[in-house]
Amino acid sequence: LGPVMIVDTPGMDDEGELGLLRIEKCKEVMAKVDIAILVVDGTLGMSDGDRMLKKMFEERNLPYITVYNKLDLVQQRIGKGRTREVPQDSIWVSASDKINITDLKDMVAHLVVDPSNGRKIIADLISEGDIVVLVTPIDEAAPKGRLILPQQQTLRDILDTGAIGVVTQVPQIPEVLASLAKTPALVVTDSQAFKEVNELVPEDILLTSFSMLFARYKGDLGEAILSANYLDKLEDGAKILISEGCTHHRQCNDIGTVKLPKMIEKTTGKNFHFEWSSGDSFPDDLSTFDLVVHCGGCMLNPREMMHRIRICQNAGVPITNYGVIMAKMQGILPRVSAPLLGKK
Amino acid sequence: LGPVMIVDTPGMDDEGELGLLRIEKCKEVMAKVDIAILVVDGTLGMSDGDRMLKKMFEERNLPYITVYNKLDLVQQRIGKGRTREVPQDSIWVSASDKINITDLKDMVAHLVVDPSNGRKIIADLISEGDIVVLVTPIDEAAPKGRLILPQQQTLRDILDTGAIGVVTQVPQIPEVLASLAKTPALVVTDSQAFKEVNELVPEDILLTSFSMLFARYKGDLGEAILSANYLDKLEDGAKILISEGCTHHRQCNDIGTVKLPKMIEKTTGKNFHFEWSSGDSFPDDLSTFDLVVHCGGCMLNPREMMHRIRICQNAGVPITNYGVIMAKMQGILPRVSAPLLGKK
Repeated sequence: LGPVMIVDTPGMDDEGELGLLRIEKCKEVMAKVDIAILVVDGTLGMSDGDRMLKKMFEERNLPYITVYNKLDLVQQRIGKGRTREVPQDSIWVSASDKINITDLKDMVAHLVVDPSNGRKIIADLISEGDIVVLVTPIDEAAPKGRLILPQQQTLRDILDTGAIGVVTQVPQIPEVLASLAKTPALVVTDSQAFKEVNELVPEDILLTSFSMLFARYKGDLGEAILSANYLDKLEDGAKILISEGCTHHRQCNDIGTVKLPKMIEKTTGKNFHFEWSSGDSFPDDLSTFDLVVHCGGCMLNPREMMHRIRICQNAGVPITNYGVIMAKMQGILPRVSAPLLGKK
Repeated sequence: LGPVMIVDTPGMDDEGELGLLRIEKCKEVMAKVDIAILVVDGTLGMSDGDRMLKKMFEERNLPYITVYNKLDLVQQRIGKGRTREVPQDSIWVSASDKINITDLKDMVAHLVVDPSNGRKIIADLISEGDIVVLVTPIDEAAPKGRLILPQQQTLRDILDTGAIGVVTQVPQIPEVLASLAKTPALVVTDSQAFKEVNELVPEDILLTSFSMLFARYKGDLGEAILSANYLDKLEDGAKILISEGCTHHRQCNDIGTVKLPKMIEKTTGKNFHFEWSSGDSFPDDLSTFDLVVHCGGCMLNPREMMHRIRICQNAGVPITNYGVIMAKMQGILPRVSAPLLGKK
């Protein structure tokens, strides 16, 4: 299943104001998790709060497992090794005696079949034996001794396809192209290096960016492109929300708070009213904004990213991402979107 | 500074049996951390326990910072904004009021200058513009959608050098070599694919493995090679410890418990007595063993790895690693060690 994030929400058995706050918190969490586990006190059976949660999961089409806990205590009454019957999508466990925990893990693994809904990062754009060049500038904001997650994930998808990944920084691109006896099937660059890479890679070689690939993989590429083009229609004083999925990346933060606003105003020659959100705090009400520019969402799962896009769409507000709008502003959106359009 | 692991040890102010256990635990931790932070209750000043710890750090050459906490309480007595004088390697903070925390972090970052003592993974073996081929078999034990840490770290070191990383699985090696107009400076393979890669990569191209690179980077390559060759001298019934740095990698576990013992007995035609250790539980007393075969230690820092090697050397027991002994058994140790020897 790979790395898993577990969000532990409070119980739903409180009444009054605190109870309402808990329900709100729980709704927020439901928007971003891939599956839910409803833990029922097996000695008491399903409570009203449990039933309410069950209903909320079902309304949201959120896959869930009902876990009846405290099997050890129940067995003291009904006999060791015995369980009471539960529906097929439920399971009896004992957290304290560790009974059926592996079975529960298996149920979880089977329920989370494919969080990206069959979508691929790059595999469907390339073939076995293809050469894909990844341009990964290393600046001081890159994690020490590692690669950032979208680069890792793209490279892994290339390897899984039986293709060959050539990883380089920007200055070595001419050397890379000269060293290859075969034209690369695709060049993928970090959006920050768009301008230089666009010039260094000859027109007849397909070029795209990690941000384009991930808008397609966990977002809505069509929406992102249309919304980026909407920039031309914005009027002086329009309100733009710049939104980040996490709070801890200094690099993205610098792009979002400084570089992007500057670039947007310079390119359009207009003045806009910028607001920012980061981490979990994506606004519920977007009706006052004219455009949302979201980060690539490397720390958000596809479900959370799609949820944010849907909030924007429901509010009638265009949403694009950092890389896509940067491509638009540098006039290379047609080039970098071409390799991805018309494909599934 | 990159990702940091913080180990919180118990205080040293207990007496009696529990106190002794705490001291033992603390000694274990001291063997693997890069620096220590001694937290002193600033309202009380340095205790006997604190002084004991200070002495232990100094005996072990472990860099440390003394942090006087509860500055907020002290300031209630001596006045806001004031601090008492402390030595230069110490700092006053208030954890509750978050005073001087950023300064403390800066002190930590400066103290941990270079945990690998100036050693490089691969940078000193290659030059800017060089092509390095990384052979990274993807099997079911690989982390989902990611690359394993040593592969990531090697690739990052290549990029930091301004060299070019070509990442491939085994079947694409002929395609890779045919696609390159220039001979790669080095091919680095996962040890598991030694046999095939050795055959696919022509003799005139330098070949090594991630395990060789990491034995050099965070261990002692010379010791690992000598110890692997010591396999020829082991007699029937000799006692071999197979040791893993972590407890959670099914892949390594399978190599350590099944593949390696089988391969060792088949290659030597002898029967040995195997024992295993994993995670933190590296035995203190190794005197009864004839050989230690350690995993690559991708989850151990250089300090912990060197500590384990020193324990073996003090006990006069040869220690090698999985990849190095596999190269030895497949007769390719001379080839894969050649690119690394004679270099710093």
